[in-house]
Amino acid sequence: MLVLGIDPGTATTGFGLVESNRDKLKLIDYGIIKTAANIKMPERLCQISSKVNKIIAEYKPDAVAIEELYYFKNAKTVITVAQSRGVIMMTAAMADKEIAEYTPLQVKQSVVGYGKADKKQVQLMVKAILNMEDLPKPDDAADALAIAICHIHSHRLGNIFKGGLK
Amino acid sequence: MLVLGIDPGTATTGFGLVESNRDKLKLIDYGIIKTAANIKMPERLCQISSKVNKIIAEYKPDAVAIEELYYFKNAKTVITVAQSRGVIMMTAAMADKEIAEYTPLQVKQSVVGYGKADKKQVQLMVKAILNMEDLPKPDDAADALAIAICHIHSHRLGNIFKGGLK
Repeated sequence: MLVLGIDPGTATTGFGLVESNRDKLKLIDYGIIKTAANIKMPERLCQISSKVNKIIAEYKPDAVAIEELYYFKNAKTVITVAQSRGVIMMTAAMADKEIAEYTPLQVKQSVVGYGKADKKQVQLMVKAILNMEDLPKPDDAADALAIAICHIHSHRLGNIFKGGLK
Repeated sequence: MLVLGIDPGTATTGFGLVESNRDKLKLIDYGIIKTAANIKMPERLCQISSKVNKIIAEYKPDAVAIEELYYFKNAKTVITVAQSRGVIMMTAAMADKEIAEYTPLQVKQSVVGYGKADKKQVQLMVKAILNMEDLPKPDDAADALAIAICHIHSHRLGNIFKGGLK
């Protein structure tokens, strides 16, 4: 199973592709989608959609996992991130992809085993799980890889309960 | 000039089409886009996008005016409305439409002349401005018509400052 994890944003959207083959996890690709602050919001959302579309067309992931949004301290941030998140979910749905959502707590719990883990702990575990030489960077790409790993773990758990690891 | 006003939402998105010809405003169409609560969010966003696309293709508006979002009391609402708003802005931008944003205060100021007007006052003014026989309903469609009127007023004002009413 190939999973595309996405950490949505407007200026920076992180993406990470992780493949699972029995109990092995393999890093396929990761990076960020950047949009310029001097471009109007509707155009930035078009750019995000078209780049997500390109990644889906190139790698053909089986599922797209995206972080669930909670209210941040900054209301303006939550609105722009939610706008981008809506566009990404729509783009994945238009491409007929299964879409899974996880809270930051679920992601940390699944990757580090501890829901209150900090960013560094998550990055160290992503590096270890995916046999990377260096810490995944930048933060948004690392988060996207963690979300993809979380989906694979959760999917496996589902299969165990359904009667055996696939 | 034909303007498509949109009041974004997930369950209900209001739309209203208003045409201006010199100093006359004419109601072209209005209504709501509904999505069912038992459908998954990504699919609902696809439905909203495809219906907005259909309205744009059918009426070919010169501009799309959309309400700006502020933090509501309910954080969950602001997130789902922002997701829908992002999808609508992207859809309009993909169709190469000029997109304008107005705060609820600007809309009320422009339509009623008073930024703290209540819903009923806005609806009465929309009815009067557009020579409607009844109050526009439901609320989301009435709000969308008010946003379209606000854009036409603001556009006119811009033209006056540029040197004469067009």
